[in-house]
Amino acid sequence: MSIGDISKPIAKHIDNFNDFFKASMKSNVALLDLIVRYILRQRGKRVRPMLVFLAAEICGGVSRRSFVGAAMVELLHTATLVHDDVVDQSDERRGMASITAVWKNKIAVLVGDYLLSRGLLIAVDNDEFQFLKITSTAVRRMSEGELLQMQKTRQLNIDEETYLKVISDKTASLISTCCEIGAVSATDDPTKRAALKDYGELVGNAFQIRDDVLDYISRESILGKPVGHDIRDKKITLPFIYALSQVSKKEAKQIISKVKSRNISNDDVQKIVSFVKEKGGIEYAERRAHDMIAEARAKLDIFPESVFKNALMDFASFVVERAK
Amino acid sequence: MSIGDISKPIAKHIDNFNDFFKASMKSNVALLDLIVRYILRQRGKRVRPMLVFLAAEICGGVSRRSFVGAAMVELLHTATLVHDDVVDQSDERRGMASITAVWKNKIAVLVGDYLLSRGLLIAVDNDEFQFLKITSTAVRRMSEGELLQMQKTRQLNIDEETYLKVISDKTASLISTCCEIGAVSATDDPTKRAALKDYGELVGNAFQIRDDVLDYISRESILGKPVGHDIRDKKITLPFIYALSQVSKKEAKQIISKVKSRNISNDDVQKIVSFVKEKGGIEYAERRAHDMIAEARAKLDIFPESVFKNALMDFASFVVERAK
Repeated sequence: MSIGDISKPIAKHIDNFNDFFKASMKSNVALLDLIVRYILRQRGKRVRPMLVFLAAEICGGVSRRSFVGAAMVELLHTATLVHDDVVDQSDERRGMASITAVWKNKIAVLVGDYLLSRGLLIAVDNDEFQFLKITSTAVRRMSEGELLQMQKTRQLNIDEETYLKVISDKTASLISTCCEIGAVSATDDPTKRAALKDYGELVGNAFQIRDDVLDYISRESILGKPVGHDIRDKKITLPFIYALSQVSKKEAKQIISKVKSRNISNDDVQKIVSFVKEKGGIEYAERRAHDMIAEARAKLDIFPESVFKNALMDFASFVVERAK
Repeated sequence: MSIGDISKPIAKHIDNFNDFFKASMKSNVALLDLIVRYILRQRGKRVRPMLVFLAAEICGGVSRRSFVGAAMVELLHTATLVHDDVVDQSDERRGMASITAVWKNKIAVLVGDYLLSRGLLIAVDNDEFQFLKITSTAVRRMSEGELLQMQKTRQLNIDEETYLKVISDKTASLISTCCEIGAVSATDDPTKRAALKDYGELVGNAFQIRDDVLDYISRESILGKPVGHDIRDKKITLPFIYALSQVSKKEAKQIISKVKSRNISNDDVQKIVSFVKEKGGIEYAERRAHDMIAEARAKLDIFPESVFKNALMDFASFVVERAK
């Protein structure tokens, strides 16, 4: 199963969305238009607009409001990707050179700010005050989550509770926003809205846990980055946190000090990967993710059967089963 | 005359504002709070909140809404300063090390995003949809203006019209927003609102022209950076644009090619500064700025005399007379 398969029931909307999205980024500055065209060529999988449309469909149907909401979240998402590349000093994005690699940090920061403001403006221009309420909280949570992660990473003393807060702020907040905005664009029913918001939060958390598990169990050829990348990056994620909880304080301290060292050897990275696997870190994280997905799917019980509901059910499963 | 003198009539509000502002930046992330405290110690002159309060006063009086508006613009302004330091690779801000110098680019980008979202949230939380309408346009114009400037700088073919568009987007948009938000927080009268919006736009443009003139006529000891800094930075501003218009195409081309060269010598910078002065570039730019200020002051004719109106009149004069 792929995102392409899952989004089939709303493929028509995604097609129309691409034109709508392009128009929403138009500017009078030639340099900016050049960069925007470049971003459009990097074209992502449109997961977030897909969630907006599917949520809207099971709540009554896609409207113009759903398109406004979808453009808003995709603009915010694109803005954070452009800023992320500055933050991570990434040279590549979706198989193409990143904005920051081609145009340098200064322009990448400004383009991110521009896309952020376009995302807000599209809501403002369409009098969607409620969309703004929902998303401005998500924007705050995204930057808070990234900063909390950095702070904790520096100290390497992250526990499961803090980890869950980080991934919920950093990743789940926007996924949840997509589902909530889709619902809001189609219904006034608070029960339906809350159900989709919760579904998004749970799926978003499971999505990030899967990402963090893949960093341990995938292969470089599939993942596009070496296994154990997070360890090298001093990022302690759920599998590692669980494994550390299974050994004595003294042993945990020794392992942590290896991760803290300035230049960790490939050998040490491999040893830690093995340690995490042996202590059951992978199984534990996968179990947590699967529990979340079961809960997410149950949130959809209140909706009648439909191809759109099936797609959301499939998406939940896809999130924890994907290989990359 | 100083900003301190001008803001005397609303000094009490500025005092209260500082507490309000501090509270509006509070977060649950320790690293973020550390940086926020650092930013608060850099304490600016609060020019933007001052404009909000003065505009509110001449439109009927400062209210809680004025405080929300003032916090909003100051948060946005602070966010752009933090991002500007990344963009300009500045190590210093207000006599202290910049955020990007202390915490590196990645954190500076995220802190800027965080402050931006707090600025929007404070409006959202207070149901100030109109504030959002006004400021999201300003945010877009600020990043567009910076990008337009970069694009034109690369080509070095900026003309007066484009220059005016750049400074209006980059600088005047937020000054104008402050005045408009102050008015909106105190009155429904569209004439008063428009007058203050126009006043802000004109004062903002004159402010930037004065900045650009000072780069030619000030001294390093006053300005904190060497005279001719803009030339070194390949930034063509109004005095230079005018001077170029006074010579043959051929001569202009020769001068431009000097600026374009990778490493322009101190001697060449001094020659260009002299050229700009000889051709009357300074007088021309100062005349343009003074005309704008006269127009700005006339916009206040519709308001009755008061200490607050006098302060806005004084601010207009201050903008073009200041030495740094």
